[in-house]
Amino acid sequence: AAVSRGRENAIHGASMFADLTPREMNALRDFLMSRKELGLTATRTKELKKNSIILMELHLPRKHDALRALDRGQAKPMRQARVVVQFGNQPQPNITEYIVGPLPSPTSYQLKTFKDNRPIKFESRPMSWGEYEHISALLEKITQKAHKLLLESTGFSMYNCSNRCLTFSDIAPRGLASGERRTWIMLQKFVEGYFIHPVGFEVLVNHQNLDPEQWTVEKVWYNGQYFDSVEELVERYDKGEVNKSKLPEHDDQDLYSTYIPRGHGNTRTDIHGPKLVEPQGPRYHVEGNFVEYAGWSFAFRVRSSAGLQVFDLRFNGDRVAYEISLQEAIAFYSGDTPAAMQTKYIDAGWAMGTSDYELAPGIDCPEIATFLDVYHYYDTDKPVRYRNALCIFEMTTAMPLRRHFNSDFNGGYNFYGGLENHVLVIRTTSTVYNYDYIWDFVFYQNGVMESRVSATGYIHATFFTPQGLHYGTKVYNHVLGNLHTHLVHYKVDLDIAGRENSFETMDLNYEELTNPWSPEHKIKQSRLVRTQHEKERNAAFRFGKKFPRYLHFYNPNQNNKWGHARGYRIQYNSHGHSVLPRGWREENGITWSRYQLAVTRHRDSEATSSSIYTQNDPWEPVVSFEDYVRNNENIVNQDLVAWVTVGFLHVPHSEDIPNTATPGNAVGFFLRPFNFFDEDPSLASRNTVIVRPGKDGKPQVQRWTPEVVGHCVSDKPFFYNGTYSGV
Amino acid sequence: AAVSRGRENAIHGASMFADLTPREMNALRDFLMSRKELGLTATRTKELKKNSIILMELHLPRKHDALRALDRGQAKPMRQARVVVQFGNQPQPNITEYIVGPLPSPTSYQLKTFKDNRPIKFESRPMSWGEYEHISALLEKITQKAHKLLLESTGFSMYNCSNRCLTFSDIAPRGLASGERRTWIMLQKFVEGYFIHPVGFEVLVNHQNLDPEQWTVEKVWYNGQYFDSVEELVERYDKGEVNKSKLPEHDDQDLYSTYIPRGHGNTRTDIHGPKLVEPQGPRYHVEGNFVEYAGWSFAFRVRSSAGLQVFDLRFNGDRVAYEISLQEAIAFYSGDTPAAMQTKYIDAGWAMGTSDYELAPGIDCPEIATFLDVYHYYDTDKPVRYRNALCIFEMTTAMPLRRHFNSDFNGGYNFYGGLENHVLVIRTTSTVYNYDYIWDFVFYQNGVMESRVSATGYIHATFFTPQGLHYGTKVYNHVLGNLHTHLVHYKVDLDIAGRENSFETMDLNYEELTNPWSPEHKIKQSRLVRTQHEKERNAAFRFGKKFPRYLHFYNPNQNNKWGHARGYRIQYNSHGHSVLPRGWREENGITWSRYQLAVTRHRDSEATSSSIYTQNDPWEPVVSFEDYVRNNENIVNQDLVAWVTVGFLHVPHSEDIPNTATPGNAVGFFLRPFNFFDEDPSLASRNTVIVRPGKDGKPQVQRWTPEVVGHCVSDKPFFYNGTYSGV
Ligand SMILES: [Ca+2]
Ligand SMILES: [Ca+2]
Ligand SMILES: [Ca+2]
Ligand SMILES: [Ca+2]
Ligand SMILES: [Cu+2]
Ligand SMILES: [Cu+2]
Repeated sequence: AAVSRGRENAIHGASMFADLTPREMNALRDFLMSRKELGLTATRTKELKKNSIILMELHLPRKHDALRALDRGQAKPMRQARVVVQFGNQPQPNITEYIVGPLPSPTSYQLKTFKDNRPIKFESRPMSWGEYEHISALLEKITQKAHKLLLESTGFSMYNCSNRCLTFSDIAPRGLASGERRTWIMLQKFVEGYFIHPVGFEVLVNHQNLDPEQWTVEKVWYNGQYFDSVEELVERYDKGEVNKSKLPEHDDQDLYSTYIPRGHGNTRTDIHGPKLVEPQGPRYHVEGNFVEYAGWSFAFRVRSSAGLQVFDLRFNGDRVAYEISLQEAIAFYSGDTPAAMQTKYIDAGWAMGTSDYELAPGIDCPEIATFLDVYHYYDTDKPVRYRNALCIFEMTTAMPLRRHFNSDFNGGYNFYGGLENHVLVIRTTSTVYNYDYIWDFVFYQNGVMESRVSATGYIHATFFTPQGLHYGTKVYNHVLGNLHTHLVHYKVDLDIAGRENSFETMDLNYEELTNPWSPEHKIKQSRLVRTQHEKERNAAFRFGKKFPRYLHFYNPNQNNKWGHARGYRIQYNSHGHSVLPRGWREENGITWSRYQLAVTRHRDSEATSSSIYTQNDPWEPVVSFEDYVRNNENIVNQDLVAWVTVGFLHVPHSEDIPNTATPGNAVGFFLRPFNFFDEDPSLASRNTVIVRPGKDGKPQVQRWTPEVVGHCVSDKPFFYNGTYSGV
Repeated sequence: AAVSRGRENAIHGASMFADLTPREMNALRDFLMSRKELGLTATRTKELKKNSIILMELHLPRKHDALRALDRGQAKPMRQARVVVQFGNQPQPNITEYIVGPLPSPTSYQLKTFKDNRPIKFESRPMSWGEYEHISALLEKITQKAHKLLLESTGFSMYNCSNRCLTFSDIAPRGLASGERRTWIMLQKFVEGYFIHPVGFEVLVNHQNLDPEQWTVEKVWYNGQYFDSVEELVERYDKGEVNKSKLPEHDDQDLYSTYIPRGHGNTRTDIHGPKLVEPQGPRYHVEGNFVEYAGWSFAFRVRSSAGLQVFDLRFNGDRVAYEISLQEAIAFYSGDTPAAMQTKYIDAGWAMGTSDYELAPGIDCPEIATFLDVYHYYDTDKPVRYRNALCIFEMTTAMPLRRHFNSDFNGGYNFYGGLENHVLVIRTTSTVYNYDYIWDFVFYQNGVMESRVSATGYIHATFFTPQGLHYGTKVYNHVLGNLHTHLVHYKVDLDIAGRENSFETMDLNYEELTNPWSPEHKIKQSRLVRTQHEKERNAAFRFGKKFPRYLHFYNPNQNNKWGHARGYRIQYNSHGHSVLPRGWREENGITWSRYQLAVTRHRDSEATSSSIYTQNDPWEPVVSFEDYVRNNENIVNQDLVAWVTVGFLHVPHSEDIPNTATPGNAVGFFLRPFNFFDEDPSLASRNTVIVRPGKDGKPQVQRWTPEVVGHCVSDKPFFYNGTYSGV
């Protein structure tokens, strides 16, 4: 009864974490648009000097209030939204965030403030559709001035170009200091996969002014040379003072940047390969944003600003984590062109959470997956549906979860036992311009949870120069794949069977003993050394420093059956490293990336480690993770949050063409029970098969599932012999 | 034509690497038994003082000779066997290895020698069935003496015990110095999963003498106390001078160590979960020991001494590696009982290669796998068939190999492209007594190859003492799960498009530049630093030292289309560390474990990094990897071999009951192409799907596979919409 009341509370409470519905979004828009004092106008227009909504998403309830509903069945707190508004139509433009509620029928709004009431600089706002329209228009003007040069150099242009058009990619951050908004933009051939078709022309545009007529070109880079204006470039080009580049004639038959198959292998691929089926139906349960599988239950959402989150993660009704959520993804580049040197992508600023486009069945997720739509309200005037943007599926990993063959060492066996490894996966993607990240949370039947990001999509490539080889690899004529480091930050608010947890690390030390059974000899062996981390700064592990072997979060107030504190470990699968020296310019925007792991005391005010404003103002960020650690709070028997950074160095190579492939490009971490249970909770699975030799010598199969899987897999019953005998 | 001749040579040459057939084994046995000068008698007898065959397996041809056949189609070298013979029936017993051939009708044998003609000490031989028979008999005698004590302490005995019997586990190494053969043996309840039922009684048996009547008990450990003999223990026990232990009454209903399901989850498990199907048939090709898949081809075998190997690994006909093979697996323990302190398992000495017992379809490998039998000749008088000991299958990883959604940032898209990730897996297991290792080689369609070991099976557990908590976790009444480190060693004889290769590592350094477009500012960015490793000792990377980011093996004589040397990277997925201080006693047997990576010049004489003799004589090993590095040869433009150590620390926890589970307990490495190809070779796959918006706005699907997968997966054709629009 306690369990089922707990389950009811969990199902009921999941809606506290559910993303805004289109109806709620519309109600929020209508309410705010009706508030005359805000002076809001439509968002998706070309006017920049306006007050308008940038983003709305769920505003999470305070944890304390949510837990009262989840744990005690008390009334759920009022449902509210976070709305980001730009006030451009005033002398001192700014960005303001509001908490608006109650939903579904909002009646009031209040200011949402940041630490020390830091204001959000107007220049730090993300780019909008309207601003890009003006950028495009400006680039058309620029390229028209350089029309001849571009045609001669590339065969492509922006004017009257039909299938020989140029497009562009803009780089961030946009300048060198807080308050700037000037962007390096590189031109590319507008063909399938334009990201890897740079043409050697980059331009620095200052677009800070809200009147696009006032925008200026500050620099131009052409084939390794810098100019102060397009006019200067063109004039000197015409005078023959410029080192010209000339791309080879564009070959439409060259499939380089496309997905179109070419070449051949040994074996057939014109038929479908192995597929997943559910021969006896699905074994998981999705109800709104609430999911159950094996012993697991959780709620999920896809935050528009930064992506996938799970809440109220429980196993057998006991909470393991309150929140596990993606915070930020960055890719910092090196190179020889100004665009390459400047590129420090901080993807929440590109609305990483809203770029969860449609998933293709059979490719992005198995055909058997449950595909769900997701709604975002970002740079829009109405809710936008992202069809099939999230998928949930169970799969076999084609490997046992556990197995043992118990030999009798004489051609026979005492028993064979095995349990197939099945997992539940919840997945979204973020296509942040060129790159596609695949975000997975994976739930194993034995209480292990895995968080994993896989990288694919196009590399960010720049025009090849000989100096470029210090920063990457030539992957095509005139194209350099630039080296970069991917780092991803997660918030892991573990609540190990309750809020009050402690954190220790474990390492090994060699000890030397007198051998108790042969005192003239010494024994050396490893001994477990546990270190309790009592303060936040003591639990913040810098990249490059020694990282402890075991990271152990436990509940000091609850023991398992054998007297050990119930706990979970975080186990890394990562090759991350820091990307800039501490405190160096843009590094101030990503202070979370200093730490492979940091453990802080939970605060509702420290909800996220980054913001959508960091990309365009990393120099003086509104949200700085370092603040969370700096006050060095006590973390013994407290509500702890683990902040996890994973990543890898990516030196592109020819095999990144046309796209980076996922194998070997996945990093993440495991949450692994460590004395949380009394024994492996996957023992609850009835998928186990045990085989013992019968009295007649024939194998006796003990099982709890149907003997025959079904005709799609095999009509034969399970078979096993167990013996290994002379022939 | 060149490709197809290459393919013919590869298929034809694969048999050079094929394991001995039963017919060959029988012929070898008959030939050697007929050689009167050897004086061989049957192996599987209780007589220890005899000359007999211990092991026979394929003897690999010299690489130079094999390559002549593989690359030039020349005649294959003579097929030979390695036969290990024990000469026990002579004044100075020894172990001798022979090369015997030619197969299939051997006519001669010659001595196989080790470095410096090191002799193989008789005491270093693996245990045999016969020796265990005598150990069992001795333990019956011992336990009969302690019958009352054991019954009172445990409720179990070895005499007249029906369902309350004791069994035992023997620990290795067997002594403290070379030439010893004395073993700590621990008693356990003989119930299902006896490995985790220690009863607190351990005994040190000296069984060096070939006359079992001369074997002696040197020490007894009971409930934390040491005694010089069983008699002393019993006498003092009866006098009341011993601290007695008393296990609780054994409860047959307690499922603790069994696989029998208990407990329950949220969702159904009494039906089968997702399964793999091949809706349109298999897409790989197995012909004897030759395999083709995607662009890959390779030969395989399962070496009786150490397990799975692949040879002549090629992609699109170009060689990537000559050999990738498992060398050794160790688990070094800590603890408080003498057995625990002593345990340093070095599994090749337990014939890890022959313990590849039957794989269960649907659990150990998918039902759709190809299951193959394997034959071993080890501690036997006839070939032993291990039914379904190896499996090969293709699977989907339920994730794209590559994908990109190319948004138009206005509710539509330019194109979507995706390719499902399929891999080929070749798998065996080794059940080395309590533990089950799952050995996988995984072949990706984009030229990536992964080697992975997953650990499952029973932990090695010892009797709980309070001091034991420094070395592990209590996992049951009176049971300690002892901490230990798993390390696995692989030989990776990369031949990157030929034998002559070089090795460099890549790291990043920060550089500071004057900003070329804003000279009052500085830029900091990472720059690639390449280090060429010219000598073996310079390319041996100790655990605990800084490990370079990229490990790059390349062919300095061959460039890809873009002018980069064709190469492969090794990427680690491992948490290994060294297990003993350098040079400390048993560490001399596992000198390979000093190095996360060592790169040596290939020598036929350096075929393996360990031997079946190391377990029982790690102090003065016949094969010591350190020898391969010590001569510090030049490794520039040479035939290189990478030796890779992976592993992890295992501190057992309650969830290891009943068995260690695979999630999070898998380590290994990737071989990743790095400018080996001109572009991603998975472009050859016709499984790609491209979707573009048609003129009518409807998605146009371009594909090269049937539109419908088949009724087992879905009768619906693929669908994709691509747009995300306001609602
Ligand atoms: Ca704090
Ligand atoms: Ca917490
Ligand atoms: Ca050497
Ligand atoms: Ca080689
Ligand atoms: Cu990358
Ligand atoms: Cu282990």
